[in-house]
Amino acid sequence: MKIDIQSIPSPPNPNVLSNLSVVVIDVLRATSVMVYAMSQGAREIIPVATVEEAFQRAKTFPLGTTFLGGERNSQKIEGFDFGNSPREYGAEKVKDKRLILTTTNGTKAFHSVSSGKEIMVGSFFNLRAAAQRCFELNRDLLIFPSGNGGIFSLEDTVCGGMLIDLILKMKKKYVMLTDASQSAHILYQRFREDLLEAFQLSNHGKDLIDLGLEDDLRYCAQVDITEIVPTFKGGAIRTD
Amino acid sequence: MKIDIQSIPSPPNPNVLSNLSVVVIDVLRATSVMVYAMSQGAREIIPVATVEEAFQRAKTFPLGTTFLGGERNSQKIEGFDFGNSPREYGAEKVKDKRLILTTTNGTKAFHSVSSGKEIMVGSFFNLRAAAQRCFELNRDLLIFPSGNGGIFSLEDTVCGGMLIDLILKMKKKYVMLTDASQSAHILYQRFREDLLEAFQLSNHGKDLIDLGLEDDLRYCAQVDITEIVPTFKGGAIRTD
Repeated sequence: MKIDIQSIPSPPNPNVLSNLSVVVIDVLRATSVMVYAMSQGAREIIPVATVEEAFQRAKTFPLGTTFLGGERNSQKIEGFDFGNSPREYGAEKVKDKRLILTTTNGTKAFHSVSSGKEIMVGSFFNLRAAAQRCFELNRDLLIFPSGNGGIFSLEDTVCGGMLIDLILKMKKKYVMLTDASQSAHILYQRFREDLLEAFQLSNHGKDLIDLGLEDDLRYCAQVDITEIVPTFKGGAIRTD
Repeated sequence: MKIDIQSIPSPPNPNVLSNLSVVVIDVLRATSVMVYAMSQGAREIIPVATVEEAFQRAKTFPLGTTFLGGERNSQKIEGFDFGNSPREYGAEKVKDKRLILTTTNGTKAFHSVSSGKEIMVGSFFNLRAAAQRCFELNRDLLIFPSGNGGIFSLEDTVCGGMLIDLILKMKKKYVMLTDASQSAHILYQRFREDLLEAFQLSNHGKDLIDLGLEDDLRYCAQVDITEIVPTFKGGAIRTD
């Protein structure tokens, strides 16, 4: 017997979004790749929805300046330079390069919240810095877990709950939680001693383990390895 | 600062629903009213979407057989017999009567899952009996928390998590949880010693307290006071 529980539909309204800070989270693995590649000196990342679009966009840039990265069904795409493991995106490969990235959930998420006032890239790698930025911006915040194929994902929600926890600890301003954000905070508290466990229990994490990618889970569970908070603006992710 | 977290859109697909058991939960207060009224001997409950429809439907039944109940903005509707507090629905008033009910979230939820194979009414009042029924039906199960104005509600999700807990304890068959149902189960575990606390922390619960309806929270937090599992079929809720 399979038991599901309905996540109530609540697509972001562009008019509401335009007043909000937004943090997009796809911790397994798109936003982990983005944060890591930018921390390693990548020049910019262009998230696109389709493989075809990735190839088309690459042609518009000078040869040797741009790499293609991403996944379909969690695996590297034919003709691409990189897959979707942050471990592939070291400085020796990405420094000063442009990256065009297409993944199943994460890259689409940025386009669905593109009306946001400031759209940040969040992962465990940069969560304290992201919390600090949200706190300084002092606007209402929408955390946007990218999910897994359009449905609720445990790992992104736990990461969102940790972001909430960090903001609550800054305590300098009144913070109001919705039922959904309270629940994410509670989920984080369940896994705070072992974030890897949340990955291992999540359906997407299990799929990655089945594909032999368990090392990526351990890698993506590292907390606060960088101070950068990349933002999505004008179709590209940058740190400036 | 308000912090929200996106609930990923996932509206139920009628083709998928037709193979599923569904339990609809609007524990504050529509499904609590339904379960309680049926346990007190009401003949049937007809959930309708609008106040106008409620008045129209009432005219089609013989005088004296039918009551109108429900709420708008958590308060009794003008010209109605009952509000939306289960405490109003004792046997001395409802036995053998038909009830036409319209509430903000709960009554609509039944119509949005009307393609389900078996659509049950769940609340803390009848959760063990509902779990037993789900277990005996042995079909995949969708728990449907009605939510609060189209958004995620803590109290309904905690109730759904308790239903999951009860089914898991029956342990006779393999049960597969999605990330969303795992998360509901974790939320329930957080509040298992004090269900009233989940109500008090929820946004809808706070609204009811502000309206002087805290007694309803205490009432709706009672667990397993009846063995009945009403079902929704052909537009009406019955126990046969």
